[in-house]
Amino acid sequence: MSASRALAYARAHRRKSLAELMDFVRFPTISAQPKHQSDIMSCANWLAGHLRRIGLGDVEIIPTKRNPLICARWHGAPERPTLLIYGHYDVQPADPLDKWRSPPFEPTLRGADLVGRGACDDKGQMFTHVKALDSYLQTAGVLPVNVTCLFEGEEEIGSPNLLPFVVRHQRSMAAHTAVMSDTRMLGPDRPAINYAERGALYLELDVHGPGHDLHSGNFGGAVHNPLQALCEMIAKFHDANGRIAIPGFYESVRTLTDKERAYMARAGPSDDQILEDAQAQSAWGERDYSLYERLTARPALTVNGISGGYQGPGGKGVIPARATAKLSFRLVPDQDSRQIDRLFREYIARITPPTVHATVRTLSGAEPVVIDPRHPASRAASLAYRKGFGAAPVFLRSGGTIPILSAFQKTLGIPTVLMGFALPDDRMHAPNEKFHIPNFFKGIETSIWFLDALASAPGLHFRTPRPGREVSGKKAGALL
Amino acid sequence: MSASRALAYARAHRRKSLAELMDFVRFPTISAQPKHQSDIMSCANWLAGHLRRIGLGDVEIIPTKRNPLICARWHGAPERPTLLIYGHYDVQPADPLDKWRSPPFEPTLRGADLVGRGACDDKGQMFTHVKALDSYLQTAGVLPVNVTCLFEGEEEIGSPNLLPFVVRHQRSMAAHTAVMSDTRMLGPDRPAINYAERGALYLELDVHGPGHDLHSGNFGGAVHNPLQALCEMIAKFHDANGRIAIPGFYESVRTLTDKERAYMARAGPSDDQILEDAQAQSAWGERDYSLYERLTARPALTVNGISGGYQGPGGKGVIPARATAKLSFRLVPDQDSRQIDRLFREYIARITPPTVHATVRTLSGAEPVVIDPRHPASRAASLAYRKGFGAAPVFLRSGGTIPILSAFQKTLGIPTVLMGFALPDDRMHAPNEKFHIPNFFKGIETSIWFLDALASAPGLHFRTPRPGREVSGKKAGALL
Repeated sequence: MSASRALAYARAHRRKSLAELMDFVRFPTISAQPKHQSDIMSCANWLAGHLRRIGLGDVEIIPTKRNPLICARWHGAPERPTLLIYGHYDVQPADPLDKWRSPPFEPTLRGADLVGRGACDDKGQMFTHVKALDSYLQTAGVLPVNVTCLFEGEEEIGSPNLLPFVVRHQRSMAAHTAVMSDTRMLGPDRPAINYAERGALYLELDVHGPGHDLHSGNFGGAVHNPLQALCEMIAKFHDANGRIAIPGFYESVRTLTDKERAYMARAGPSDDQILEDAQAQSAWGERDYSLYERLTARPALTVNGISGGYQGPGGKGVIPARATAKLSFRLVPDQDSRQIDRLFREYIARITPPTVHATVRTLSGAEPVVIDPRHPASRAASLAYRKGFGAAPVFLRSGGTIPILSAFQKTLGIPTVLMGFALPDDRMHAPNEKFHIPNFFKGIETSIWFLDALASAPGLHFRTPRPGREVSGKKAGALL
Repeated sequence: MSASRALAYARAHRRKSLAELMDFVRFPTISAQPKHQSDIMSCANWLAGHLRRIGLGDVEIIPTKRNPLICARWHGAPERPTLLIYGHYDVQPADPLDKWRSPPFEPTLRGADLVGRGACDDKGQMFTHVKALDSYLQTAGVLPVNVTCLFEGEEEIGSPNLLPFVVRHQRSMAAHTAVMSDTRMLGPDRPAINYAERGALYLELDVHGPGHDLHSGNFGGAVHNPLQALCEMIAKFHDANGRIAIPGFYESVRTLTDKERAYMARAGPSDDQILEDAQAQSAWGERDYSLYERLTARPALTVNGISGGYQGPGGKGVIPARATAKLSFRLVPDQDSRQIDRLFREYIARITPPTVHATVRTLSGAEPVVIDPRHPASRAASLAYRKGFGAAPVFLRSGGTIPILSAFQKTLGIPTVLMGFALPDDRMHAPNEKFHIPNFFKGIETSIWFLDALASAPGLHFRTPRPGREVSGKKAGALL
C-alpha cells in the first residue's frame, strides 16, 4: 500500500529528481586529485543537507583523514529488518578532457541520457535509493524497513578510510543486509545482480636512470633510457598467451566449477557483445576462457598510464632521467592483495635491468568478493527488478572492484545486494560518462519495491543483527 | 693589428655583451610549440635589429613557411675569403618545467654560469660570433673577411625550411667555408672541433586499440591495452645486447678504421667521463664499442617520450584507447634517413600485434656528416683556439645532429668548422641548461682570432666560391 503511494510520488516528481541529480553531478568530486578537496567538502555538505531535507533526521558528516563519510539513519521500525545502503559521491578523474563532448562537470541532457562524470558511477545509481527513501517519507512518512545510509567520498581511491571506520563501528553499522548500486545491467531490459567483484591493487612503478635528463644526441646509445627500460619491463608482465608472467601469481586463483561456467555462458554477455561494448576489433588474453570469464573470474594486470620524457607537440631529443607507469591488478578469490603486492615486488626486483633503478609504490588494495546469490535479500531484489524493469535479473560476476564489499562481508557479516542500474555503454571511468535517464527512474521504482519486499522477506524478519558473522565466499560460488 | 683592437674592445665590453645575451635568451623561442610563434617573431626582429646596430648594413628577415631566417652580410673585402656564419635562435622545449631552479626564460647568473633555455644551445654560442663581428666593426670599421650570417629559427625541429632555402640560394650563400658553434668542448681548457655529426630521424608511433577509453575493471584481461602493446613493441626495438633489432638497420653503417679508433681513444672522452657527465651508474649499448664510439660513430634509437592513459596523481582504472611514443634515431654515415624511415615502418608492420593498430608519423630527417679536419679553415680555427683558450683543439666526433650541415657540404660544397664552446655539463636540451660565462668571453676572442686567421689562410685566399663542389665524407674519415 505504502509502496504504491511512494511510486506515484516518484513518478510525479521525476523532473525534480533529475534536476537534483544534475546538481549532485555538478560537484567535481575527483578524490584522486587533492586540488578538488574543497569540491568534495561542498558536495558532502550538499548531500547531507539533501538527506536532512527529505526527512532522514539523523544525518552526520563524519570527518576522516581525507574525505568525509555521510551517515544517515531512519530506525523507526524496530521489528523490521535493517538495510545498509552504500554509495559513493566521489568520481574518477575526467582526463582526457579533450575527449568530452560537453564539460564533464556540466551535466548535459543528450537524448535519453544524462552526460557527466559521475552521472552513472556512482552519483546517479546511489541517488535512485535516496529518491526511493524520499518517496516513502513524503507519502507514508515512514520507511518499510530500518535504513542506514553510508555514503563515502573515497571509493575511487580504494576506500582507505571507510574500511577502518566499518571495523571501528561494527555495532552502529549492524544490519541484516546491504545494498549498493554501482554495477551494470546487460542491457536496458536485462537487469542484473552481481554476485562477485574482483579485488584491486593499484601501484606505481618508477624507473630511474641518469641523474638528469640527457640530450639524446650526446648520450643516445651509451646510457640505458629509463623509458625504454620501463617498456622492456612491462613487456615481461605477460607471456605470449596473455597470461601474467609473475611467478606464483595464479596459485591462489579459485578454479571455476563446471556448473558455474555453464551458468555464466548462459547468463552472461557473449564475446561478441563484450567486444562491441569495448569497440574493440579483437579479443586478447587467456585463451582457455570466454571473455566474460577473463573479465570477471580471472585476474588482470593493466598499465593505466605511462609518463616520461617529452609529450608536447613535435619532437625533443631527450633521454628522460625517469619514467613512471601506473598499474593496476584485478584480483579474484582467493588472491590476496598483500600477497600479490609481495609477488609483484619480487618480480620487479628480478626483471629490473642492472642499468637502471626501479621503485614500486603501493597506492591501494582491495580484496575480491563472492556473495551468496540465494540470500533472501537477493530474492527481494529479484522481485523488485521484476516490478521495476519488468524482467527478472540474471546473476553476474563483475570485473570491477568495490573495496568496501569485503568489509561488509567479513566484518559486518552481511551479504550485499549489488543491484546495478548502469548500462554497458555508460562509459564509466571514460570520457562522456552517462546515465540512461529511464534507468534512473526505473531504478528509483525498483528501490521502492526492494524496500517493500525486504520488509516481508522470509529469513530477514525479526532477526537481530549479528556483527561478525561471515558469509562464505566459497559456498556462494558453488551455488550457481 | 685590427684583431688586437677588436680584442681590446671585446674585453672592455664584456658586461654589455652578457647583458645583450641575456636579452636574447629571454625570448621563449620554442620552435616545436606553435604557441610561441609570436615570441619567435619578436626574437627575429630583435636579432635583426641588433645585427643592424652593430654595423652589418645588409640585414634581411626572410620569411619562410614557419619561422623566419635572418641573413646579414658584410662583403666589403672582395679579394678576401667569404665566411658563412650559421647559428639558430630557436630553442628546445623547456619541459619538465618543475625541474628548473629558475624559470627557463628568465636568464639567471649562478656562479660563473648563465642559466636559461638556449643560453648554450644555441643563443650563447652563436652570439660569440656576433660579438666578434661587433668588436671589429666598432674598432676597425671593417671585417678581416667577407661574412654572411645565416641564422635560423627551426633547428630544433629539423630545419625544414632552411634546407630548401640553401638549395634555392646557392649563389648568394656561396662561401669558402662555414663556421658554427653548436657543439661541445671536452672541458673548460680542452677545446674541440667536431668533424662528424650524426643524422637524425624523428618519428611518432601511435598504437590504437578499443574505440574509446575503457574501465580496466570491466574490460581488463579481455582487450589488448594499447599502452601495453606499445611497450611490447618498444621492447623489440633492441636486442639483449643493446643493438637495434630492425633488419638491415646496420647495413649502411660505415666501419671505423683502426686509425680513427686509435685517434678517438686518444683524443675523445673516456667511458668514465661520459658516465660522469650523464650522472649514470652504468654503461649500456653495443658491447664492442667504447662509449664515445657508441655515442658518435654508431647509430642509436631513443624513446624520447611516451604518453597514454592517466598521468595525474593517484590511480585511475582505465585502459586508454590510444598510446603514443616519440622516437628518434641518430644515424651515422652512410645511413640515409629516408631508407631508415622505410626500414622502421616495415619493422613496425611486422611487430604490431594483430590486436591493435599502429601508425607511424615522420616529423623530420637529417643526414649524418663527416668533414675533412685538414681543411685550411680547420687550421685557422686551431690557431684561433690556441690564442683564445690557450690550448690546441682536439678533433671529435659528435653524437648530435645539425640538419643544415649536410646541405652546406653537399649543396654549397664547403666544409663547416664546428667550433664548439659548450661544456659537457651545460645540460643542453635538459632543465637548467647553462652557458659557462668564461667560455662566452673566450668564445668571442676565439672568433676574433678565427676571422683574423682566415684572412690569411693558405688555400682559401682569392678563391672564387664554387657552389656544387662536394667534400667527400669518406675521405675525411680516413684522414685521422
